[in-house]
Amino acid sequence: MNIYKNPKRETWSELTKRPVFKKQEIAQTIKEIFAEVEKNGDEALIRYAEKFDSAKIDQLQVTEKEISKAADLISEELKSAIQIAKENITKFHASQVVETEKIETTKGVICWRENRAIEKVGIYIPGGTAPLFSTVLMLAIPAQLAGCQEIILCTPPDKNGNVNPAILYTAQLCGVSKIFKVGGAQAVAAMTFGTETIPNVYKIFGPGNQFVVAAKDFAQEFGIAIDMPAGPSEVLVIADEKAVPEFCAADLLSQAEHGSDSQVIFISTDLKVLNETINEVKKQIKELPRNEFAQKSLNNSHFILLNSIDEALEFSNLYAPEHLILAVENFEKYISQIQNAGSVFLGNYSCESAGDYASGTNHTLPTNGFAKNYSGVSLDSFVKKITFQNLSKEGLQNLGKTIEIMAEAEGLSAHKNAVSIRLK
Amino acid sequence: MNIYKNPKRETWSELTKRPVFKKQEIAQTIKEIFAEVEKNGDEALIRYAEKFDSAKIDQLQVTEKEISKAADLISEELKSAIQIAKENITKFHASQVVETEKIETTKGVICWRENRAIEKVGIYIPGGTAPLFSTVLMLAIPAQLAGCQEIILCTPPDKNGNVNPAILYTAQLCGVSKIFKVGGAQAVAAMTFGTETIPNVYKIFGPGNQFVVAAKDFAQEFGIAIDMPAGPSEVLVIADEKAVPEFCAADLLSQAEHGSDSQVIFISTDLKVLNETINEVKKQIKELPRNEFAQKSLNNSHFILLNSIDEALEFSNLYAPEHLILAVENFEKYISQIQNAGSVFLGNYSCESAGDYASGTNHTLPTNGFAKNYSGVSLDSFVKKITFQNLSKEGLQNLGKTIEIMAEAEGLSAHKNAVSIRLK
Repeated sequence: MNIYKNPKRETWSELTKRPVFKKQEIAQTIKEIFAEVEKNGDEALIRYAEKFDSAKIDQLQVTEKEISKAADLISEELKSAIQIAKENITKFHASQVVETEKIETTKGVICWRENRAIEKVGIYIPGGTAPLFSTVLMLAIPAQLAGCQEIILCTPPDKNGNVNPAILYTAQLCGVSKIFKVGGAQAVAAMTFGTETIPNVYKIFGPGNQFVVAAKDFAQEFGIAIDMPAGPSEVLVIADEKAVPEFCAADLLSQAEHGSDSQVIFISTDLKVLNETINEVKKQIKELPRNEFAQKSLNNSHFILLNSIDEALEFSNLYAPEHLILAVENFEKYISQIQNAGSVFLGNYSCESAGDYASGTNHTLPTNGFAKNYSGVSLDSFVKKITFQNLSKEGLQNLGKTIEIMAEAEGLSAHKNAVSIRLK
Repeated sequence: MNIYKNPKRETWSELTKRPVFKKQEIAQTIKEIFAEVEKNGDEALIRYAEKFDSAKIDQLQVTEKEISKAADLISEELKSAIQIAKENITKFHASQVVETEKIETTKGVICWRENRAIEKVGIYIPGGTAPLFSTVLMLAIPAQLAGCQEIILCTPPDKNGNVNPAILYTAQLCGVSKIFKVGGAQAVAAMTFGTETIPNVYKIFGPGNQFVVAAKDFAQEFGIAIDMPAGPSEVLVIADEKAVPEFCAADLLSQAEHGSDSQVIFISTDLKVLNETINEVKKQIKELPRNEFAQKSLNNSHFILLNSIDEALEFSNLYAPEHLILAVENFEKYISQIQNAGSVFLGNYSCESAGDYASGTNHTLPTNGFAKNYSGVSLDSFVKKITFQNLSKEGLQNLGKTIEIMAEAEGLSAHKNAVSIRLK
């Protein structure tokens, strides 16, 4: 833990820095995996499953039988929790459908936009320490709402060649068309090129380790779109004197437990709240099963005392956190000052885990400062907006001269002629 | 010109292929330019201006005096054309502002999204054979509407160290804060890192040659967002028996004159219209000042006879054209079948140049098949959408159990505890 009391503004830029990735080192590995998958398809994937996941599988696609068996392996309690989360996420993302409005910009010139689903999308769900079925909800629900025709999901098998049943159950519940036992960079390569079994897709979504992240970046070179660039998860909590240190500490730890590279920043305008939160963190961490991750993450965390909420928000906008918790009494008056953040949690009862699971907002959010120039995943992420225009003869008569003059000024005679020939 | 009569479906995939870029060859050059600009700033830019643009300049920023002089160098006729285009583009893009709606997903749980402008954006405008002031309109207008605080523009100087007056005039008219005489990959590098004179930005927009395109891709590695990946410009025209061959030919040529790598595809369901359009193209091309570009582009163009408009649209969706012209009598009934396209022009009087300049739609559009997974530039391109949520105590009581169950199932105890500690 690093503690700063009213740090000078000149130091803020240093305090908002993220750890630097070493991308180059794995670039060659990623290239090789892509080349292998492009050339040898399924055979390469089965080979990689044995090499990287220690799993002997003879079939990449999860069968109907495996999926229906998964439902039996999950408690009714969890099923109903997933159902409630699904309803909330659906409600919020359905509200993002925008009606198309036709605009007559000049008499006889009508312009509008229409949404079209991206036809084929791929979702990557990591294996590893936490079976992220919540991420299946966050990606498959808007994909289905958008109307994507093919929604495939890749996730690594465990040592026995199985996929976590909660992931399977959630995937089938949310309209995923096909599920494949493929993990890592090879999964991204498979969705990029397609194999005998796995269809190629136009856009790839989902979190993953540094190999998956690098593979998604590399996939872009083959014309594949991705949800957003990635980095370790982060939270920045701003607390005034009315904030509850126990709650703040719990929120910081819920971020810290994600992984040792998680970024945690706490800012308070009240020294007592700052100190008590630090003590609470030290107390609560002892109870956590994942306290090894949490401790490593906390070693790099910043606890900062600042003079005012305004100043805290200035710092936050500079940092551009993935998650921003505003544990502040009159949070309404500060909303308009928030410029850069992925998702914002307002007040003492809006814990980050609400948004991680079930409030309805999406938890796939920009990290690593990308909240300055990227939005989180939403319904928009699964559609393209096509512009349409219709000029009547009268419309072209009204606007033709303008187009001709501009085309001529740009030296593009054929552009001008396309108008002139129609007005003749 | 390649002419195909009812080509078999097995051949369509080949017919929709784009020429492949040679990205690798220039990657090293781009890297070097970025390193130079990062290290030496303005000095490097002034050196590159002499090397690449043959321009001796001692000041990178265009002065107030140069800008006000530019207004005198432009005809009143052009000024008023630019004004009309500006009004239409403003009208259409202003209609893209979406009101935020608050959704109560569970009683006491309120979620919504708010737009925030990307604070600093950069626009690149190429020099070269056509002074693209129209692209200034297309990028600066939505940037200003979105509320971007800093809108800078880079464009290469001519041999005398000047910038085209129409570009300067349009830039100041549309709220560009600063204009710099910097072109090519070095301009992209300057906007990525910032120099003594040029501020860094969070997102870079605009067209350019292969160096600019590669530089924009490379800028992403430093956390900069870009408008979209790029390729040569394209049009696909679908014409029925009521289409006018003179108009179709003019549209094809207005695309072909952009450059020798422009992609032109013509599909008709009527052999007479196909043949007459080919003849018209041959006739009209003779009159064009840029006929050398147009001829090269036409050498690679496809003229295709198909059985029906339905079939033509299937082909078009596979190709995913930047511009799609539907010169078809009952175009309304086909709109819903259009899945992949950047911008669509409906009917005999909707020529592409209308959208290129003045109808109101944006002309920065996905090429190279990217219309399958990307939208063109719109107001959305200049904002992030931040999600907000507020849970009341009652809200967390209603949703808390759901969150706890899901967090536990993912093995994330601290996530669960952030709820439990509040419900205690």
